[in-house]
Amino acid sequence: MGEATRQSVVVLLGAGRVATHLAPALLSAGYRVGQVWSRTMASACALADPLGIPCTDDLRAVITDADIYIACVADEALPGVTKALVASLEAASGNPLLLHTAGSVPLDVWREAGARRYGILYPLQTFSKERAIDMREVSFFVEASSEESSAAVEALARSLSRMVFHADSRRRALLHIAAVFACNFTNAMYAAAHHLLAADDIPFDVLLPLIDETAAKVHTLTPREAQTGPAVRGDHQVMQAHLERLSSMPELQHLYEQMSRMIVTTHNSQPTAHNS
Amino acid sequence: MGEATRQSVVVLLGAGRVATHLAPALLSAGYRVGQVWSRTMASACALADPLGIPCTDDLRAVITDADIYIACVADEALPGVTKALVASLEAASGNPLLLHTAGSVPLDVWREAGARRYGILYPLQTFSKERAIDMREVSFFVEASSEESSAAVEALARSLSRMVFHADSRRRALLHIAAVFACNFTNAMYAAAHHLLAADDIPFDVLLPLIDETAAKVHTLTPREAQTGPAVRGDHQVMQAHLERLSSMPELQHLYEQMSRMIVTTHNSQPTAHNS
Repeated sequence: MGEATRQSVVVLLGAGRVATHLAPALLSAGYRVGQVWSRTMASACALADPLGIPCTDDLRAVITDADIYIACVADEALPGVTKALVASLEAASGNPLLLHTAGSVPLDVWREAGARRYGILYPLQTFSKERAIDMREVSFFVEASSEESSAAVEALARSLSRMVFHADSRRRALLHIAAVFACNFTNAMYAAAHHLLAADDIPFDVLLPLIDETAAKVHTLTPREAQTGPAVRGDHQVMQAHLERLSSMPELQHLYEQMSRMIVTTHNSQPTAHNS
Repeated sequence: MGEATRQSVVVLLGAGRVATHLAPALLSAGYRVGQVWSRTMASACALADPLGIPCTDDLRAVITDADIYIACVADEALPGVTKALVASLEAASGNPLLLHTAGSVPLDVWREAGARRYGILYPLQTFSKERAIDMREVSFFVEASSEESSAAVEALARSLSRMVFHADSRRRALLHIAAVFACNFTNAMYAAAHHLLAADDIPFDVLLPLIDETAAKVHTLTPREAQTGPAVRGDHQVMQAHLERLSSMPELQHLYEQMSRMIVTTHNSQPTAHNS
């Protein structure tokens, strides 16, 4: 399997954050990336040119003899892109594997597009174009239309990462929601802190050791065990002082109240066992 | 100063998380920790015995010839502890430096207790007894009653950490609030994710690479630049699906709505320049 897989030709549909990180990872895993499609020629070529990959903005011009097609487009664009892709490939003789990378779009989007052999390759990570990501450390969640295609997606995922799991669409959606809390909302908390300090010209960087330790702690403690601060201590005097200080920022004040309430509830309800 | 400082005798008041991390850091910085006081003998000795330090639960029995006294007690306990300490030291001939480590308690708590030479040694970090902390990487914020005591607190802080800053009580309280968002509320987001995954028997550990990268990103990008996810993408379809999925958890559903709103607001308002 290893060798066969490694000579496969992959077409990337989309040139956003996920595609931008997948392309070099696929190349270094030994795949040939035969083409990059994007809605605009500019974005397609911005990703493809530096890697010496042909690019197009026309779904009818997508090469039809690739082994794997990976759609990395915005969720709302997926139904349109999957249908157009399946239509372009209809005439072709091959039976390629059609994948998408979205956390919250069900496998059915491919069935509804009329695809025969399809699946999901969902990388649970936050991708920014400015940052390199070690794909071997990214958790990939895979799902497919059949035993055979499932094995093929898993082989692809394993060639990119050492952390590959199977998850049906229901579980994948749950993982995506959990990721929104653990990553997107966490970053929004950093932004709130940044905003507070910037008002007093205090550099955000003074918080970095704290931010790092907060992330490091949950490698060895459950979040419940790792929780510190006024709320979990029941330090109402401090919480009151903080709420007064935030009176000029009603949104942050409300958030402070709600999070503090949640910390108390969670702490009195959630399991302690480290879930691993 | 170096040598003088290193031979100073320190008394720790409190045996909680901060004291537990300060004691060994003081010892390895060359201080002699002359005594540990705590409200209960059990907690005082639990910290002191393994380090060969005398312990007591009687504030009137605190040794009076130490050079530095550091109160690491809960904020609401500080007024009582500082008053009792000053009273115990009244008869003594020395003029020790009296410090506390609280983020949100003003310097005045010492003045009100009748202290002469006092200050603040605030470590901006999340301390759990289960985890070792490299104190040299902890941001310390210092404040004091005079130029002379300010220099003394700074010397103490610099012997423990390479990151020492001056901050008056107003700025220190702001730093504490920012830390609550960046650490305590961030950890509460991890807890929410843990809770979501546990309901489906998915190990929390699959999120660790994501959590680590989310923290790592804000070392090189502002939180605003680092923001990813459905809210900042304006992906209403995904947000709607997530909110429906959270309908059985109204608290998390409300939080999801509010955080998503905040991400959109922040993204349209906050400065992009990396604050460092």
